[in-house]
Amino acid sequence: MALGEFALIDRYFRACGARRADVVAGVGDDAALLRVPDGADLVAATDTLVAGVHFPHGSPAASIGHRALAVNLSDLAAMGARPAWALLALTLPEAQESWLAEFAAGFGALARAHEVQLVGGDTTRGPLCITVQLLGFTPRGTALQRSGGRPGDCLFVSGTPGDAAAGLALVEGRLSAPAALHHYLRERFEMPSPRVALGERLREFASACIDVSDGLLADAAKLAHASGTGVEIHYEALPVSAALEQAAGTERARELALTGGDDYELCFSVAEKNLAAFTQEVAPQRWAYQRIGVLRASPGAVVLRDGSVMQFSHSGYQHFS
Amino acid sequence: MALGEFALIDRYFRACGARRADVVAGVGDDAALLRVPDGADLVAATDTLVAGVHFPHGSPAASIGHRALAVNLSDLAAMGARPAWALLALTLPEAQESWLAEFAAGFGALARAHEVQLVGGDTTRGPLCITVQLLGFTPRGTALQRSGGRPGDCLFVSGTPGDAAAGLALVEGRLSAPAALHHYLRERFEMPSPRVALGERLREFASACIDVSDGLLADAAKLAHASGTGVEIHYEALPVSAALEQAAGTERARELALTGGDDYELCFSVAEKNLAAFTQEVAPQRWAYQRIGVLRASPGAVVLRDGSVMQFSHSGYQHFS
Repeated sequence: MALGEFALIDRYFRACGARRADVVAGVGDDAALLRVPDGADLVAATDTLVAGVHFPHGSPAASIGHRALAVNLSDLAAMGARPAWALLALTLPEAQESWLAEFAAGFGALARAHEVQLVGGDTTRGPLCITVQLLGFTPRGTALQRSGGRPGDCLFVSGTPGDAAAGLALVEGRLSAPAALHHYLRERFEMPSPRVALGERLREFASACIDVSDGLLADAAKLAHASGTGVEIHYEALPVSAALEQAAGTERARELALTGGDDYELCFSVAEKNLAAFTQEVAPQRWAYQRIGVLRASPGAVVLRDGSVMQFSHSGYQHFS
Repeated sequence: MALGEFALIDRYFRACGARRADVVAGVGDDAALLRVPDGADLVAATDTLVAGVHFPHGSPAASIGHRALAVNLSDLAAMGARPAWALLALTLPEAQESWLAEFAAGFGALARAHEVQLVGGDTTRGPLCITVQLLGFTPRGTALQRSGGRPGDCLFVSGTPGDAAAGLALVEGRLSAPAALHHYLRERFEMPSPRVALGERLREFASACIDVSDGLLADAAKLAHASGTGVEIHYEALPVSAALEQAAGTERARELALTGGDDYELCFSVAEKNLAAFTQEVAPQRWAYQRIGVLRASPGAVVLRDGSVMQFSHSGYQHFS
């Protein structure tokens, strides 16, 4: 993009997000220079959004910018990490100024909300595709991982999964719903709220954690697999928003909660012995999480309904009988 | 890519590159967990390669894997940093196993050569596009930047720029040359050698440094601009390989050396007072660099030939008179 690239970066990305004192050199050199606190572990994630795959063609640019950062914030939340610095690799067919302004506004607002500074990146011409790399840290040795769960640990999920999948279905015309519900469900897809603060609180209490991006059941199964356990989810315990229930009906709402994806909620396990302290220190009402099941010794992921087993495959929802 | 993605990652990327003791958790969790040495500055770069833009469609997969890492290694080299950890965001139209095996082999061999471990990433479906994020470090406060040059500092370049542009022209059929030169020039485009070890040596001596990716003249101009200086390059001093001179002729060879791009060499400045120590400690014969000009007080980039000025614009080669 030659000169156009520099003008564009100057205008929209040089001062994007928070200003942080630990950035020695940000956008504009060959690489960013960053000061990790002594006694910290560095946490690094990267996620890509491809137009037509991870969001519909023609999605609002502000939503694309927001989501490109949000999906990475969610990964850091799952590690219990505090996000700090982002790099943005933006491939786009043309440098359309209004689109870039909106994209940067969506990205920047979420970055500022989480005290993240954009410190570098690359702008290239090609089919619309956004890769963000997010760096953050935890006190050394305290990060959450997927692998720490043990049989008997209780399983939780934050928020109300399934909303985002319904929002996407609305946007794509695969679901119809009363107009009053549109805004809420659509926002849940287009402007997800990664659970960064909750992730940081969980460091002290959770045995394992994963972010819910591919669907609650599939991601809970991944957590269990990494922990060398199985998992049992209680169908009746699944938290479902009133809007989702109204839009999709009770059965379909729970199905979406289990298998919808794009939720960017946290699914985590807490050992029995830590339960009392956890629910006291991190009140479920305030932090909006719900107990939905338990890790068990036998492998695989099982959904229980009225005491009977609904079997799902490891890769997600297969049948619903 | 559902289950296919995990199988694919397991097979080709879980153990890619070096094994490093400072990786607490690599590929397989929501994010990588890394231990930055105390007293270090973290250095982070990201660069994207898009098929049809940064390499011809149908390029060898090993070359694409090599180059995706090499362009980032070159960014870290320009900071004088030691590379450590890479994240790979790979967007590809289909998970073709032979392609992936070759890509991973090209990426992995270069990673091992530089003691870099692949610690995370994302695999998505879409038009072929590769973004690598590379992390490394320098002793605190010692990183090279573009902005440290001063009027009077001598300007140097490593290697023989222009070869890669000629190699690409050969691949694309825009240049013909004796078969004996093909392999060398093509390799210079397809398998560039980022100057990581030289970058580390330069920390002690250089006042400013940039990697040559957009063409020597354009990148030297960027270094000068960031340093608040201008730059004067001596046409006769430009290092040109015998292969390039044979393939393109003396005039065109120097033009390519100035404006070709994709070189991944280092362009750097050294203050007069450090020159003697520099050339003694970092011998030009062994490290293959050449003095090509000087930073000057008046802004802009100028090429001098036989004492007369060949004016080039800031954005690169414009005319050649």
